[in-house]
Amino acid sequence: MGKHTLKTILIICVMTLQPGIVNVINVSAQEIQRQQNVRVVSPDIKSDNSVTFSLYAPEATNVTLNGSWMAQGTTGTFEKNSEGVWSITVGPLEPSMYHYNLIVDGVRAIDPGNPKAQRDGVNYASTLIIPGTGSEIFEVNNVPHGALSKVWYNSPSLGLYRRMYIYTPPGYEESNEKYPVLYLLHGGGGDEDAWSSLGRANYILDNLIAQGKAKPMIVVMTNGNSDQTAAITDRKLAPTAGAMNTMASNVFPNSLINDVMPYIEKNYRTINNKENRAIAGLSMGGLQTQIISANNPGLFDYMGVFSMGIQMELGEVTTNLIKSYDENLDKVKRNNYKLFYIAVGVEDFVYEGVKLLREKLDEHDFKYIYNESSGGHTWANWRNYLSDFAPRLFK
Amino acid sequence: MGKHTLKTILIICVMTLQPGIVNVINVSAQEIQRQQNVRVVSPDIKSDNSVTFSLYAPEATNVTLNGSWMAQGTTGTFEKNSEGVWSITVGPLEPSMYHYNLIVDGVRAIDPGNPKAQRDGVNYASTLIIPGTGSEIFEVNNVPHGALSKVWYNSPSLGLYRRMYIYTPPGYEESNEKYPVLYLLHGGGGDEDAWSSLGRANYILDNLIAQGKAKPMIVVMTNGNSDQTAAITDRKLAPTAGAMNTMASNVFPNSLINDVMPYIEKNYRTINNKENRAIAGLSMGGLQTQIISANNPGLFDYMGVFSMGIQMELGEVTTNLIKSYDENLDKVKRNNYKLFYIAVGVEDFVYEGVKLLREKLDEHDFKYIYNESSGGHTWANWRNYLSDFAPRLFK
Repeated sequence: MGKHTLKTILIICVMTLQPGIVNVINVSAQEIQRQQNVRVVSPDIKSDNSVTFSLYAPEATNVTLNGSWMAQGTTGTFEKNSEGVWSITVGPLEPSMYHYNLIVDGVRAIDPGNPKAQRDGVNYASTLIIPGTGSEIFEVNNVPHGALSKVWYNSPSLGLYRRMYIYTPPGYEESNEKYPVLYLLHGGGGDEDAWSSLGRANYILDNLIAQGKAKPMIVVMTNGNSDQTAAITDRKLAPTAGAMNTMASNVFPNSLINDVMPYIEKNYRTINNKENRAIAGLSMGGLQTQIISANNPGLFDYMGVFSMGIQMELGEVTTNLIKSYDENLDKVKRNNYKLFYIAVGVEDFVYEGVKLLREKLDEHDFKYIYNESSGGHTWANWRNYLSDFAPRLFK
Repeated sequence: MGKHTLKTILIICVMTLQPGIVNVINVSAQEIQRQQNVRVVSPDIKSDNSVTFSLYAPEATNVTLNGSWMAQGTTGTFEKNSEGVWSITVGPLEPSMYHYNLIVDGVRAIDPGNPKAQRDGVNYASTLIIPGTGSEIFEVNNVPHGALSKVWYNSPSLGLYRRMYIYTPPGYEESNEKYPVLYLLHGGGGDEDAWSSLGRANYILDNLIAQGKAKPMIVVMTNGNSDQTAAITDRKLAPTAGAMNTMASNVFPNSLINDVMPYIEKNYRTINNKENRAIAGLSMGGLQTQIISANNPGLFDYMGVFSMGIQMELGEVTTNLIKSYDENLDKVKRNNYKLFYIAVGVEDFVYEGVKLLREKLDEHDFKYIYNESSGGHTWANWRNYLSDFAPRLFK
């Protein structure tokens, strides 16, 4: 859309689709205007899954590409044509969801040609979905969709009134059924948005349920940063830009048990026993899952630790975790849990820690399922792990 | 956050807040990385509500600012210092919520220093909230918050399975009460996200309810583009980048009456009579509100038309609208509606059309409340109109 004056925006198109029957009009009410420029299609996904990114920027002197499929620290270089359009072709890429930024004369930007972008912590990037087998599980397919709700709750443990996301499966509103619950925890730098936005947890569950692979369940996605009421977009005061969220090791886990779980079991139609409770998390959320499962034997029959092990680098937190494992794993075992699931990519920087975790569990003869994938510490892996984990629950 | 290698991201900070008691750790799981650069604070809001924007971009040759508070088509020019930091100071600005882009060597970007950004149609911009009297009504204040749910429903009228947002007021989950319903429609180029993201409708209702100014109510925010299942972020196929959404004049209004309303009244605890139904919309949604109220006398006691009148430029749509007004306004009148509310800014390009609408209503001796504000076709006005309209409902 060009930079129309307000008056001409009013009637952008009055066109007759079927003459005399339907008039189609557009009365624009957009505050954020698109720049007047040469129209480019970006990203342009070719039939072989290679992708061309394009940017009209005759005044720019250097444009590079930073994509989540690239090795850390590497970029691609755009070439400029005589009309001022920069372009670069990458791939072919595996079907998956990726994120990328254009770096224009040193400044990170989202792709102005791409209407899909997402926030990851304090940064924004454009979204690229390569359709295909690996993407079907998280795409918005033509299947019944559950509801995704942003709900505020009191956390006396944290002294905060705070927000979480709750997924209720298709049919929840219409039925009187009770459902099992999966508590799903995000990683460091993330917040309560992450599992549905970057992780597509709601669409993954929709698809698994539609295929009969997963049981209909409620999924609770909390904010694991114990000092935050809500994601940056939904709280009044911004921290210093780029400040790290702080997260106390036992503080959030306690609030999940003492505040979140009672709220959910009171206000939703849940089945309130360990056979119908699961907990899983990625990275920091995987650490929190370990802490919660070790300290609360008999609460969860299903536990999932994605991309996190016993990381010696974490000092006292790890020492405490090992201590609680030694004290409590046998208790968890005696309570007959059904699943302890571990997943990690061979290129993940926590790989050695996961090895330690498995050794610790082996030492206690504590059974687990281990899923070793390719790749590293990425949402592509976490979406896959959830897709593999959820069908194993509540059966 | 710098561009750490994955290994060093793991332990960004292991610090003891209260020695020996709480360990605070951060295990980063962010896929979208922040660039390594000089840390700037942007936007920096001064005590007099002037605002300095800053950008580290030593390689850029020209940086301008495009803000929603500026006159259409104007920009501000950044100045570069010897360290490569560009900055510009604007204002003082009135307390409100604004959006802006940085134009870096001709390319529109969001502010990399600002963690808050929003989508408006197919474009993204950074968010700026100037705190103060005018902002309190839509801020995330320390009051009870209702839930905001994304719900999918069948629309046989449109042949689509599609998404809407539903706000349920604080206490809805815990109570057995029934509530009145406001149907709230977005403008052209918008979608079901718009009233909660740009319009902050949920926070406005939270605040009005907490102050005892508005009755607790359910608010239903639909997608008024009759060819869309959901916002661009939540549907599989993207249209051509920048393509205009098409919207048939009577098609969406009919689907609201025949599909949306029955779904809501079946699945939510609603009071199902005209005294407890309201409908309002902005711009295109104001047109849809006019069509719906004229064609469905006796369904709604409360109607709100924000920034939209009888726009002769819209051709056949307007001719039909005038015809249905002439045929039906007396019927609506005989049904003893309680409120017909019109609001427009004196600088709005639809101002003359609103004059025509008022003349048409006067001609029928059809009572209405008229709120003429400053400003134009802006979200600042629509947030204010909602804040003025909602307290008048269901009383």
